[in-house]
Amino acid sequence: MKQNAFYAQSGGMTAVINASACGVLETARKHKNRIGKVFAGRNGIIGALTEDMLDTSKESAATIAALRHTPGGAFGSARYKLKGLDENRAEYERLIEVFKAHDIGFFFYNGGGDSMDTAHKVSQISRKLKFPVICIGIPKTVDNDLPVTDVCPGFGSVAKYVAVSTREVALDVASMAKTSTKVFILEVMGRHAGWIAAASALAGQTAADAPHIILFPEVPFDETRFLARVKECVRRYDYCVVVVAEGTRDTDGRFIAETGTRDAFGHAQLGGAAPMIAKLAKDRLGHKVHYAIADYLQRSARHIASKVDVEQAYAVGKKAVELALQGQNAVMPTIVRKSQRPYRWTVGQVMLSRIANREKMMPKGFISRDGFGVTAACRRYLEPLIRGEDYPPYHNGLPRYAKLRHVPVAPKLRKDFVLK
Amino acid sequence: MKQNAFYAQSGGMTAVINASACGVLETARKHKNRIGKVFAGRNGIIGALTEDMLDTSKESAATIAALRHTPGGAFGSARYKLKGLDENRAEYERLIEVFKAHDIGFFFYNGGGDSMDTAHKVSQISRKLKFPVICIGIPKTVDNDLPVTDVCPGFGSVAKYVAVSTREVALDVASMAKTSTKVFILEVMGRHAGWIAAASALAGQTAADAPHIILFPEVPFDETRFLARVKECVRRYDYCVVVVAEGTRDTDGRFIAETGTRDAFGHAQLGGAAPMIAKLAKDRLGHKVHYAIADYLQRSARHIASKVDVEQAYAVGKKAVELALQGQNAVMPTIVRKSQRPYRWTVGQVMLSRIANREKMMPKGFISRDGFGVTAACRRYLEPLIRGEDYPPYHNGLPRYAKLRHVPVAPKLRKDFVLK
Repeated sequence: MKQNAFYAQSGGMTAVINASACGVLETARKHKNRIGKVFAGRNGIIGALTEDMLDTSKESAATIAALRHTPGGAFGSARYKLKGLDENRAEYERLIEVFKAHDIGFFFYNGGGDSMDTAHKVSQISRKLKFPVICIGIPKTVDNDLPVTDVCPGFGSVAKYVAVSTREVALDVASMAKTSTKVFILEVMGRHAGWIAAASALAGQTAADAPHIILFPEVPFDETRFLARVKECVRRYDYCVVVVAEGTRDTDGRFIAETGTRDAFGHAQLGGAAPMIAKLAKDRLGHKVHYAIADYLQRSARHIASKVDVEQAYAVGKKAVELALQGQNAVMPTIVRKSQRPYRWTVGQVMLSRIANREKMMPKGFISRDGFGVTAACRRYLEPLIRGEDYPPYHNGLPRYAKLRHVPVAPKLRKDFVLK
Repeated sequence: MKQNAFYAQSGGMTAVINASACGVLETARKHKNRIGKVFAGRNGIIGALTEDMLDTSKESAATIAALRHTPGGAFGSARYKLKGLDENRAEYERLIEVFKAHDIGFFFYNGGGDSMDTAHKVSQISRKLKFPVICIGIPKTVDNDLPVTDVCPGFGSVAKYVAVSTREVALDVASMAKTSTKVFILEVMGRHAGWIAAASALAGQTAADAPHIILFPEVPFDETRFLARVKECVRRYDYCVVVVAEGTRDTDGRFIAETGTRDAFGHAQLGGAAPMIAKLAKDRLGHKVHYAIADYLQRSARHIASKVDVEQAYAVGKKAVELALQGQNAVMPTIVRKSQRPYRWTVGQVMLSRIANREKMMPKGFISRDGFGVTAACRRYLEPLIRGEDYPPYHNGLPRYAKLRHVPVAPKLRKDFVLK
């Protein structure tokens, strides 16, 4: 039996989510006896709900191959959460209706925890509605907050970006510290978990090396202790590099920089931890301070992607198709660390029910006792994830990224579907 | 006759100022019959004034070679301006005193416009004080604001960083625009001249490509016209990427984001143009907005340096020594564009008197009529400057940058010198 497949990207982008797409599409193309066409949702799951799909069979093999080195989401993503079956029954039913109309028997959903939950629910309801669809989740998140898998594809590259940037900027600040900036602050992503901030620690080897202070969402921000540490660093090393996670909270549990707006998932939209910290260091210690906010640059920086991360992103995409063809359902490929030195990994799998709505925090043993750095165990965990460079091809000084044709799939259903 | 040389770095760092240092030191080592040792100022010119110099002859050839791919300032830099001969006579005299004590007959000063002025004055006063020192300026500035030279080493690499980052982040934003961020703002350096902001234009080829709007210091910021353009971009392309120079001013000539602090040169310390623009787009148009502030990351990003820029930075360092050995004095090597297609360049020279205290602005013909973009002439100028990649060596996923021994030169003068 041969059926079509549907692939969608979800949530925030990473430098390597398209490498997973590449893994899915290249592997599916090798099994044309089982998988007909792969349709991609334009703007993620919204493309399925509104029957707005793109026919990936119209893209050349070269274009599909180029996805491996292209950041962003090639088909568009969405922050659009399908909640419980009862609350969102109409939407789940619509999905199945569209899948049925286009003979879609496979659903590959590339996203984070919320998306794994959706994939799980689609698997359940499709059976109830007598149109069983094989649903496979493909892990993706820069936040590295999915459980079970050793790492989430996307994290290794943002980790590398942050570590490399910290090492570089520290050389700049150190050389100017005598007469200019003494305190430099880099704000990185990380709403609830400090994984990205922790990765900056790889930039240095000794206490004298930057980053001198890391502020984690897991450690309540204590102004007095922080200022004392900055002062001490400037005294000892002439300068101080601070890496702050956007989700750092004060001792009352409030984000130190909440802007007050919320996204479709109900998450607070953050930004502004660095200026807050900068003002503090400037006003209270009188130092010249500079800060950078990496924001989306960190998660789209394909030019400095981790080779290990690219390979893992591709591997989970490939494995997703293989699992589907084995008849596995409601599962997600995982990265399994087989050995630390030398670093060896393989792809495993886990039931989506074990992933959905669980957030992996940094282990307590990964943050140093003083709360301003990481432990040796954390370093051991992080080190292999940023290994290797995987440069995109360049033309005239700029990376040459995939440009897709985006040929739409002709709709088969008459009625429009209105999104909530 | 054989004399020692003094090399100092000045002002803000670039990704390639150490490539110029490499050019100076490697070339000087080839002429040991004429140049004894090269001493480097610890923290730039301050190292000469306080007789705190580093003996570069103690660094291995491998370390010197590694400077070519190491960002920041290997010997430390300073924002410390020597003004007129009358105002700062004691300091000029002290410099000559130190040079005399260490038999320094060559002064290589690697910096921007202020530094060229200092080098010029040192050349004049050294003759008056009967200890003539050959003074050669070596151009360096990410701002690209030195006259005569076709480009300033340092600019090509920040230009490449900004163009690459803009291209990458645009893919991210485009893929999320349906349900998330519609307006993205990248703040880049550029206090008075919009060269760096202009370079972001290389990221796109058509009007639909990012950046959709560039805000230059040269073009007064008009809120109404800006908002209308953002609205139009979102309507047409679903999203809008804005690149804003930190030095953008309003129609009254005020920086849109002045923090109020000033550095040693009396320049205002900027930062915060992006949040100001972001708030405007959010409050007035109701879009979800994100912003990044590249700050020092852009000028230290050696990992994505322009190969042309690295080669030019090395070449002006090399040429500086060659000019000195030819007995030229009070000159600066320049980059001369010999042909556009194919791009060919050579190293020329100019008297320091023609450089000092003159700032090169963007030509009027480089900014598009609407003030939000660049012209074809500007693109032709910028394109070759970001060409080629020149990756540093990596070890365990991180760039391996030069670590210097920093062996101090034994002081010969008794009295301390107190800096103003």
